[in-house]
Amino acid sequence: MTQVIADISVSLDGFVAGPDDGPGRHPLGVGGERLHRWLFGLATWRARAGQEGGDRGAGDDIMGEYFARTGAAVIGRRMYDHGEKAWGEEPPFHVPVFVVTHRPRPSRRLSDGTSFEFVTAGVAAAVAQAVAEARARGGDVAVMGGGQIVSGALAAGVLDELRLHVVPVLLGGGRPLFAQPLHPARVLETTRAEMSSGVTHMFHRVLP
Amino acid sequence: MTQVIADISVSLDGFVAGPDDGPGRHPLGVGGERLHRWLFGLATWRARAGQEGGDRGAGDDIMGEYFARTGAAVIGRRMYDHGEKAWGEEPPFHVPVFVVTHRPRPSRRLSDGTSFEFVTAGVAAAVAQAVAEARARGGDVAVMGGGQIVSGALAAGVLDELRLHVVPVLLGGGRPLFAQPLHPARVLETTRAEMSSGVTHMFHRVLP
Repeated sequence: MTQVIADISVSLDGFVAGPDDGPGRHPLGVGGERLHRWLFGLATWRARAGQEGGDRGAGDDIMGEYFARTGAAVIGRRMYDHGEKAWGEEPPFHVPVFVVTHRPRPSRRLSDGTSFEFVTAGVAAAVAQAVAEARARGGDVAVMGGGQIVSGALAAGVLDELRLHVVPVLLGGGRPLFAQPLHPARVLETTRAEMSSGVTHMFHRVLP
Repeated sequence: MTQVIADISVSLDGFVAGPDDGPGRHPLGVGGERLHRWLFGLATWRARAGQEGGDRGAGDDIMGEYFARTGAAVIGRRMYDHGEKAWGEEPPFHVPVFVVTHRPRPSRRLSDGTSFEFVTAGVAAAVAQAVAEARARGGDVAVMGGGQIVSGALAAGVLDELRLHVVPVLLGGGRPLFAQPLHPARVLETTRAEMSSGVTHMFHRVLP
């Protein structure tokens, strides 16, 4: 059955981007790039970019399996804007991506299997579209961030699983994963926790 | 060598007490008691209270070893005030406890090995006194909270290790472990992460 799985890196003090983020400033906030180094160092990630070597271990297995199972993705507009420049014509998805935004935009279709649909009806609507697409492909839905999208999906009750990669850095400010006002009391259950590549991978089941 | 180890339970959204905490209101904030249930259910904890049974596993081993190695403890005034009523004449320490407070108070000495010294010179001074005491006993210093004391000790550079027990609840507000303004950039290294009794135990070394 198609699962909706959010997966995001977070600092020990709960931020998914550092202070002063945004275009023309720091794309991931001051220090925010430290949240993603572990990922970019994985053998799985490097292989997707045509590079050899990299870290192996639990984190690599987790992310390799996550990418392989992903049939569609959901991201926020801010991540899209940031990525549009960084990714160029080779975004790291290779599946349909639904972008939650307030501004309608024409969809984009790339030759590598990536497509971008811009959804203005909110995160729950974007997840629903992604589920339909992923189900047709026999895959899962990856809710990839940023924090507003992940916690919005949790609040909306459309997440099956929340995976956090806790990076032992203190950003001291920035974009919190769980912004106020918070979602209603969702009941979570930790199903796995493991350290590798210097970070703690924590899996949580969202109970109905 | 005497180690200074902070150990505290924290919600998935980073709070060590729920909203509206305080005397006459909710001692641990709304929902805050959920952060400590795992601890009170451990065989180690129950044995200290003269009760049988309880959870065994990694969390129990971790806490059993932590209590056994503790030669002195540091806590905040709020935890002391809350505990004074809850503990009665049997506080769960059995070692000298240094309480960080703004108000001087005469020390208290109990028959079970617990004593309370009230330190008005700040958290670093309290830790220094606890280190001297623990070293004489061949033990470690346990910095037990609350959040202000733990993050204050981290900020002051007097912590060797930070242990978090991440409980998969969302409190939506309350007392954050890492309050603003934050400590200078401390470099941490995750040394262990493991799930048991439904929570994730994460150990972090504080690098010099």
